[in-house]
Amino acid sequence: MDKQLIVENIHVRATRDDFEVVGVFNPAVIRLGDETVMIARVAESVVQNHRDHYLVPFVNGTGNIEMKSIPKQSAEYDYSDLRIIRNEKTSYLTSISHFRVARSTDGVTFDFNGPVRIFPETIYEEYGIEDPRITCIDDVYYITYTAVSRHGINVGLMRTVDFERFERLGIIFHPDNKDVVIFPEKVKGRYFALHRPSLSAFGRLDIWTAESSNLISWGNHKVMVEAVPKCSVTKRIGAGAVPFLTEKGWVVVYHGADAQSRYYLTVMLLDKDDPNKVLAKSRRPLLEPTEPFERLGFMNDVVFTCGLVVDEEAIRIYYGVCDQSIACCTVSMDELWSNLEV
Amino acid sequence: MDKQLIVENIHVRATRDDFEVVGVFNPAVIRLGDETVMIARVAESVVQNHRDHYLVPFVNGTGNIEMKSIPKQSAEYDYSDLRIIRNEKTSYLTSISHFRVARSTDGVTFDFNGPVRIFPETIYEEYGIEDPRITCIDDVYYITYTAVSRHGINVGLMRTVDFERFERLGIIFHPDNKDVVIFPEKVKGRYFALHRPSLSAFGRLDIWTAESSNLISWGNHKVMVEAVPKCSVTKRIGAGAVPFLTEKGWVVVYHGADAQSRYYLTVMLLDKDDPNKVLAKSRRPLLEPTEPFERLGFMNDVVFTCGLVVDEEAIRIYYGVCDQSIACCTVSMDELWSNLEV
Repeated sequence: MDKQLIVENIHVRATRDDFEVVGVFNPAVIRLGDETVMIARVAESVVQNHRDHYLVPFVNGTGNIEMKSIPKQSAEYDYSDLRIIRNEKTSYLTSISHFRVARSTDGVTFDFNGPVRIFPETIYEEYGIEDPRITCIDDVYYITYTAVSRHGINVGLMRTVDFERFERLGIIFHPDNKDVVIFPEKVKGRYFALHRPSLSAFGRLDIWTAESSNLISWGNHKVMVEAVPKCSVTKRIGAGAVPFLTEKGWVVVYHGADAQSRYYLTVMLLDKDDPNKVLAKSRRPLLEPTEPFERLGFMNDVVFTCGLVVDEEAIRIYYGVCDQSIACCTVSMDELWSNLEV
Repeated sequence: MDKQLIVENIHVRATRDDFEVVGVFNPAVIRLGDETVMIARVAESVVQNHRDHYLVPFVNGTGNIEMKSIPKQSAEYDYSDLRIIRNEKTSYLTSISHFRVARSTDGVTFDFNGPVRIFPETIYEEYGIEDPRITCIDDVYYITYTAVSRHGINVGLMRTVDFERFERLGIIFHPDNKDVVIFPEKVKGRYFALHRPSLSAFGRLDIWTAESSNLISWGNHKVMVEAVPKCSVTKRIGAGAVPFLTEKGWVVVYHGADAQSRYYLTVMLLDKDDPNKVLAKSRRPLLEPTEPFERLGFMNDVVFTCGLVVDEEAIRIYYGVCDQSIACCTVSMDELWSNLEV
């Protein structure tokens, strides 16, 4: 498998002088004529040059960036996760993410230093917007994304027709939820999505399906008990790229992670008329962290996809590595089918 | 305030000889002509007569009761909560709840020993069904309820026209969520509900609103940041009775609880045309545990409402006490309005 690192955080300029880009990763991607359009998550941290406190950024009620000061050594706080500083009451993210758009004709050269068109602004986006996925329905591009705030981990929806102006359509899955992909076609007259609720007391981190007539309101939630991979030890899973339809059914490339948060990508085949039904799953992981750029970074051993493009003979998977950079790889359809077993 | 204990668990027969009814509580209630119809949650435990293990009941894939055996003294399990036995992987409920229907002409005499018409049966109801609320829309009675299983704490919907046959309409709010009440009228052409997502990492336990065109699919989720009571220390809140419309707006009687899980009832007034907008809140709790039957029981100091009936001059609130019995009390509209402040 030919893996290629295509975008690195060091090549992306921060939105402010006192910020640094710590990651450009987990991109949504879609084919648009001869171009490949990518919406990447760009995570920025405050350049930390204070001896006794950290500054963590957030977006206030009027859509502007503010900083919260957190002491560097306090028994009140837990600093063990690089991404999060917690105390008993709440959690703060050490970075804040926004989205940037880039277009490419060769599918591997993307420049993210153009104007920033999608910045967190609502109360649900106080700590940032993350992990976009694009679905094209009737020439409109719908983008699902994770919105993080004091009000939990919500899933928002926005739409665009030109990738310049984006309209927010509100929160479509209440907290906590993430990893939402909308199917590009109706199934038996209804829109379908995969989603991943996070549970607090009972239950596992499973993939669920939901249905909608208008993309805004979702119901008939059903757990996909069969989606848990057979091919690897798994603590949690979540939908990855937007599903694509083949003669055999819907193909979904998704992620799994073990208890040490080592991620891998895997694949399943869903029934064409009932996406809640798993017809086949990977014999072995589709992609695992093996290259140095997949193994070492802001978070080690992370490969995480939010999008792919489909050609006749192969799919090209774009994926975030180590919550820091973007890579891609090509998997032939032959390889995909031989990996799937009923 | 005239509080009255009206149904006790000791007066309700178990569904099996090896079960005992540990609670009849948290009833949905609705006025139907001259009658008051009540749907109560009935919690049953296995009569425990084994020296070295507990038996916890659950409903299996074919809708039948099975037992899981859990050792009585094992370092693997946490027995500190009377309602739940946990280990690292999952949680089990010590009782399983179903619903029973009773009708009353005087509003205080209810007999729950008739046929059991609503028993847990789907994979989302494996550990029981809890805390129903009834809303009448166009002569159909819609019942929201909590469904507990290995797949988390979901919110299901069922409907009936005769309170004898009940049709399930699926899961309307994915896990974890509970305390869902549907408004009895559309607001600006859309159905509205209050719901209470449970968050795992970020965020508080707040009340949210959602909208729907068909009662099945819900979206446009919004947090009611203003719903947190001013009148008492509060760790979590949740909608209680189905809202009722007055000239001043929607009146919602709901619960709050402190960190020690001492519950109280309180009230808020919502904008007639925008139920996300809180116009007024209680100066003081509407109802607190003061009577012996409210203070001591299976869970101490719990008052929890799922329903009330409205007369011209007063409301009669029905509420579960101590996760064990049912009480009611009457609050005059004068008292209600004098308790609300903008």
